[in-house]
Amino acid sequence: MDSEFQERLTTVNGELVQMTRLVGSAMNRATQSLLDADLTMSESVIAADAQIDMLASDIEEQCFDLIAAQRPPAEDLPFVIGALRIAASLERMGDLAEHVAKQSRLRYPRLSIPQELRGTFAEMGGLAEAIVSKTGAVIATQDVSLTADIARHDQEMDRLHRELFTIVLSSSWSHGVEAAIDVTLLSRYYERYADHAVSVTRRVVTIVTGAPYVGVSLV
Amino acid sequence: MDSEFQERLTTVNGELVQMTRLVGSAMNRATQSLLDADLTMSESVIAADAQIDMLASDIEEQCFDLIAAQRPPAEDLPFVIGALRIAASLERMGDLAEHVAKQSRLRYPRLSIPQELRGTFAEMGGLAEAIVSKTGAVIATQDVSLTADIARHDQEMDRLHRELFTIVLSSSWSHGVEAAIDVTLLSRYYERYADHAVSVTRRVVTIVTGAPYVGVSLV
Repeated sequence: MDSEFQERLTTVNGELVQMTRLVGSAMNRATQSLLDADLTMSESVIAADAQIDMLASDIEEQCFDLIAAQRPPAEDLPFVIGALRIAASLERMGDLAEHVAKQSRLRYPRLSIPQELRGTFAEMGGLAEAIVSKTGAVIATQDVSLTADIARHDQEMDRLHRELFTIVLSSSWSHGVEAAIDVTLLSRYYERYADHAVSVTRRVVTIVTGAPYVGVSLV
Repeated sequence: MDSEFQERLTTVNGELVQMTRLVGSAMNRATQSLLDADLTMSESVIAADAQIDMLASDIEEQCFDLIAAQRPPAEDLPFVIGALRIAASLERMGDLAEHVAKQSRLRYPRLSIPQELRGTFAEMGGLAEAIVSKTGAVIATQDVSLTADIARHDQEMDRLHRELFTIVLSSSWSHGVEAAIDVTLLSRYYERYADHAVSVTRRVVTIVTGAPYVGVSLV
């Protein structure tokens, strides 16, 4: 076993975990900016996305170099290829947090979400946080027992997304078309964020178990 | 030069081109199902997505095998890695066409889009068709001169997407909240479809020119 090679794999894995922290922090702060109409917070999320993009590029380059220069043994290839895909999914999660922050900024100094949906978005933010933290743990430990938890959170996110449609389309909705569109798109960003996290954990399961990755990509 | 290896690269490239045809056909038929409220057409798009997913999985497995078993020369690695990403983007484009078809099915036998937006969606469908056809040509020929065309179509798609918001939010919008949400989500599906095609062509440019891939992933 080439120890330099193994060290580099460990570095890449550590950077993937760091990405989960960054995109987790981005979504938490984006949710906060949404609930408080906090422009400074929105701007900080938007500015920080470049760091997430750079980290993803760096991981990509490292994986590429590992394959090209280091010629990894066949059993390590799934990790290297998987890392490429995981970095792309995490980068997209960062983009989705940025979308939430931009939506918040767009309506500043007004709030983007009416009072009766604050609870829904607070819950979605909490689910996003739980999902991405557990995704980070799965990557860090390769302990795939957390995937059931993550899948359950994702189902809860889907339920909230569907429920939001019911609220927006009910006869008691009094906030008009613009607010309806705002909250629908916002809700979709959270739902996609969770989907990407699930796709990341599926990739890790594939790497760990060696099972073939099941077709439906969420990337 | 290992001719068996080169042959397999050619096969993978041909399958990527085939994917562009399938996801192009899926979006064309989805647009048709939307404009005609044609349930049979919607169902056919939804059913056909499994074929697109399978093709993506097959390409993934082949790339994986090429890297693991064939140990490609360093100069061919960008193609193999790039093919993995391109297949994932194309698969996602198929999903977006399926989303359009599902939206159409959801409102059947009613139309999902009001009369004054038919032109917009017909135009978006036409742009999607042009973009994906040219993306297929870029993959098939590695002639990257078409990328400027594709970028222009993508900008036009973005313009239509922004214009739709203006229409939906104008005081003359008489179709209520549900229709507003329907057309907003639909428009976003077309816009994301175009984004993914642009991301595919950027990947091809990276492969052809050897330039580093610029950070912002659209996957």
